[in-house]
Amino acid sequence: MKLNSLHDLYLSELKDLYSAENQIIKALPKVIEKTSSPELRQALESHLEQTRAHATRLEEVFQMHGEEPKKMKCKGIQGVLDEGEDVLGFDATPDVRDAAIISSCQRVEHYEIAAYGSVRTYAEQMGHDRAAAILQQTLDEEKEADEKLTDIAESRVNIQATRHA
Amino acid sequence: MKLNSLHDLYLSELKDLYSAENQIIKALPKVIEKTSSPELRQALESHLEQTRAHATRLEEVFQMHGEEPKKMKCKGIQGVLDEGEDVLGFDATPDVRDAAIISSCQRVEHYEIAAYGSVRTYAEQMGHDRAAAILQQTLDEEKEADEKLTDIAESRVNIQATRHA
Repeated sequence: MKLNSLHDLYLSELKDLYSAENQIIKALPKVIEKTSSPELRQALESHLEQTRAHATRLEEVFQMHGEEPKKMKCKGIQGVLDEGEDVLGFDATPDVRDAAIISSCQRVEHYEIAAYGSVRTYAEQMGHDRAAAILQQTLDEEKEADEKLTDIAESRVNIQATRHA
Repeated sequence: MKLNSLHDLYLSELKDLYSAENQIIKALPKVIEKTSSPELRQALESHLEQTRAHATRLEEVFQMHGEEPKKMKCKGIQGVLDEGEDVLGFDATPDVRDAAIISSCQRVEHYEIAAYGSVRTYAEQMGHDRAAAILQQTLDEEKEADEKLTDIAESRVNIQATRHA
């Protein structure tokens, strides 16, 4: 791939993120199915809805730049999701599995926080204010989703898991 | 794998992190070689030193729990590092490559921030105060490394990259 400008890098990272969001949309229902805590299940179901909206927002950003929305296989999120799928296969008690699911979903969130942080900054630096605002909105929602998972982990799920320790 | 307790999950995530740190130690020198900005190079060289210390700290944590330090192939970081290696192969101008390297290193940092956040919380919840403090120290350093990369990206590298836009 040829990257002659920050704009080229920006587009390439948007394609990587568009692939990432679509991989997450495909993976999350299998994760949700394996949760035990209703609170965790609800948080992930609501995040799945948000993830669909994030993919749509990326399509808007591509269109703003006169580009067709394209995916470029995101190997990073693929690795993180593969690892998450392995976690689902572990022979774990329900509470421990919930704790493991939270940990694995937070790795996904953090990957996205880093990736959206980069494209948001590129958009700002090139003066694409509307695109930057849209990307910032998604970034804020990824951070909120991560904090929500931390709250669930700290307040409930892991406390129950220690009972088996 | 059998995970009957939070302690089992904690050990399994420590092994995953021990693998992750060692994969990063192997990958970073190739990344450093491809940087152009002296500031970025210095930040990554100093982070490589820190990463070696993080691996040693994990060994201490294993020993605290009477366990041999073991690795469990971290597929998550492997995906993120593979993607970073692809970035190094792009035909990019030096400034754009530096911006791409920063973005890719921040994905690595964020993966680790999520992973250390989880094991630190487990250690706290099980009353392993010394282990929690050691893991918190590494977590703080990963966050600082991420902020340092943001500073470099925002203040210098990308600004130069836009000149080619």
